[in-house]
Amino acid sequence: MAQKGDLLSVRQDIRVVDATIRDGGLCNDFRFDDKFIKDLYNANVKAGVDYMEFGYKASKEIFNEEDFGKWKFCNDADIRKIVGDNKTPLKIAVMADVGRTDFKKDIIAKKDSPIDLIRIATYINAIPAAVEMIEDAAKKGYETTINIMAVSKARTEDITAALETLGQTPVNAFYIVDSYGALYPEESRRLADLYCSIADKYGKSVGIHAHNNQQLAFANTIEAMTQGVSYLDATVDGMGRGAGNCALELLLGFLKNPKYQVAPILKIIEEYTHKFKAEGVKWGYDIPYLLTGQYNTHPRPAIQFVKEDRQDYYKFSNELYDIINS
Amino acid sequence: MAQKGDLLSVRQDIRVVDATIRDGGLCNDFRFDDKFIKDLYNANVKAGVDYMEFGYKASKEIFNEEDFGKWKFCNDADIRKIVGDNKTPLKIAVMADVGRTDFKKDIIAKKDSPIDLIRIATYINAIPAAVEMIEDAAKKGYETTINIMAVSKARTEDITAALETLGQTPVNAFYIVDSYGALYPEESRRLADLYCSIADKYGKSVGIHAHNNQQLAFANTIEAMTQGVSYLDATVDGMGRGAGNCALELLLGFLKNPKYQVAPILKIIEEYTHKFKAEGVKWGYDIPYLLTGQYNTHPRPAIQFVKEDRQDYYKFSNELYDIINS
Repeated sequence: MAQKGDLLSVRQDIRVVDATIRDGGLCNDFRFDDKFIKDLYNANVKAGVDYMEFGYKASKEIFNEEDFGKWKFCNDADIRKIVGDNKTPLKIAVMADVGRTDFKKDIIAKKDSPIDLIRIATYINAIPAAVEMIEDAAKKGYETTINIMAVSKARTEDITAALETLGQTPVNAFYIVDSYGALYPEESRRLADLYCSIADKYGKSVGIHAHNNQQLAFANTIEAMTQGVSYLDATVDGMGRGAGNCALELLLGFLKNPKYQVAPILKIIEEYTHKFKAEGVKWGYDIPYLLTGQYNTHPRPAIQFVKEDRQDYYKFSNELYDIINS
Repeated sequence: MAQKGDLLSVRQDIRVVDATIRDGGLCNDFRFDDKFIKDLYNANVKAGVDYMEFGYKASKEIFNEEDFGKWKFCNDADIRKIVGDNKTPLKIAVMADVGRTDFKKDIIAKKDSPIDLIRIATYINAIPAAVEMIEDAAKKGYETTINIMAVSKARTEDITAALETLGQTPVNAFYIVDSYGALYPEESRRLADLYCSIADKYGKSVGIHAHNNQQLAFANTIEAMTQGVSYLDATVDGMGRGAGNCALELLLGFLKNPKYQVAPILKIIEEYTHKFKAEGVKWGYDIPYLLTGQYNTHPRPAIQFVKEDRQDYYKFSNELYDIINS
C-alpha cells in the first residue's frame, strides 16, 4: 500500500485518543481523584485531543466496587460530574470488555449519556460476542470500535476472517492492539496494510493501540499511521499497564495539524504523572517488559517482578524461559 | 530500495558496535573504573558483539587529562591493560573527532596497537579534514568509518556530495549519525536508502548511530537496517549523552543470528548501569530531550535542565522556543 500523507502535511482522518485513565488505571486500580480527571479533561480539550477514554464499563457482578476506583465502572453520573454536558469538540469514550460488562443494563441510550464512543475489547476467539455488543451499542446510538487484543499472537487468516465478519456490523473502526508490545515497525505496517485493505472495503476506519515493551510504541503508532491507520491511542507520559503506551506528548509533537498542542499535556506531566511515579505507581519501559515483549507473551510475570522491586534481570530471563516453555 | 532480509533470517553483513564507554562516557566524563571496562569487554565477547568502542582519542593539547577519565584519550597502553592481545573475535574501536585529535602523533601503526577501527567523527562542513584523517589511519593499517554528525540538519545535496567524495577514500563505512534524535523512521529509511545507494557504488558499508530523544533510537536503527545498513551502534541500557542511544539489549534480542546473546548484557545492567543511575549519572529519555528532538536542535539546553533537577517542562518549552529563535 502506498504511504498515506507525509511528514509535513495534515491528515484530516486522524483521531487522537487519550487512553490515560483507562490504561493508566490498570497501574493504580483506577484510583484517581476528580481534580486530576478534570484537569486532564481540560488539558485534552486545549491540546486538541479528539477522544478521551474515561475507563471501563466493568460488570459490578464480576468486580467488587470497593476494590477499585470509580473509573473501573464509569457510571454515567460520575462522567457527567467531570464533563457536565461536555460542550467541547472532545468526545468521551469508555471501554467494555467482552464477557466482563453488563452492557444491556449498564450502557444506556446515547441520548441520555455523556459517552460518545464504546470501545469493545475482545480476543480474536470471541468475535461473535463482540458483534452482539457492537450491535447493541450502535442501536443505542453510540459510535463503536472493536479492539482485537494480543494481535501479535493471532494468525493472519483468523484476523482476515474476523475483520470480514466485523466489516458487516455497524462498527466504526477496527483496532490493532499490540497488548504484548511484541510488534516491530515492519509488522505494524504489514498489519495496518491488512486492516486498512479490509476496512476500506466496508467503509470503516482503523486504529492502533501500542505498548512500549521494546520502546516501539510511538514508532509502531506512526508507522501504522503511514499505511492509513487513523485512530491513534496514546497516554500522558505513556502511563499504562506494564511498559505503558505511546506517549501522548510524543504523538502530539509529531502531528502537523495546528489544532494539536503539546503544552497543556506538559503541564499535566509536571503536575501529576511524575508525582504518581514518585508515589510508587509503576509503569514504563524496563528490562523485564523488554523480555516479555521479545518473547511475545503477556507482561504478567514482568509486572510481578517490578512490583517486587527485583533487579536480577538475568535470573528473571531464565525464569521466563521456564514459564513460557512449561 | 527493496527490503534487505526479513524478521526470521540472518544477515551476515550485520556488525553490532557497542559504544557504551564512548557515548556513555559523555555522561560521567569517562570516569569508569577498570573492573567495569573489563567486565563489559568480557560480556561483549560472550554476547557476540562485533566491535567495542573504548572512547575518544582526544587531543591532550586541547583537553586537560586531569579533567577526564582515561577513556577520553584511549592510550593504547590503557586499552591493552584491559584486552591484552585481544585474542577474541571482538574488534576494538576508538573515535577521533575532526579538529580535536592529534592523529599524526597519537594514532600509531596498527601493527603496534590493540585498536582495529578508527571512527572519524565530523560535521558535514569538514569533510576534507576528515578525508585526511581517513587516509592517515588507513595508511597506518586501520579500518575506518566516517561518522557524519547532526545529519538531521544537513541538506540532501550536501550529503550526496560528501558521500561521493568519501566513496573515493579508503573508508570502510559511512555512518548516519542522528545526534539530535530528530529523525523519524521514514526519514531513517530514506537516508539509509541514499547512503546505501552511494555506498554500493564504491563497495562501502553503511552504519547508523541513533539517539533516543523521541524513543525512536531502536526503531530508527532496525528500520535503517531493513534498507541495507549493516553497522549498528548501541549502548548497554542505552547509556549515552542526553536521551541516550539504541539499547544494546533491545538490538541483541531482535537480531536472529544465534551468535548474539542478550544474557551477558543483562548481567552488566543489573551489576553496573542501574547503579550508575542510582549514583547520579544521568541519561535516558525525558521530556526536555523530547523537546530538543522535536525542535531538531542540540540537546545542550535539555542536558542543563536535567542537571539542575528541574521539572518545569512547560516553562522549558517556552525557553527553548526563545533559544532557538534568538
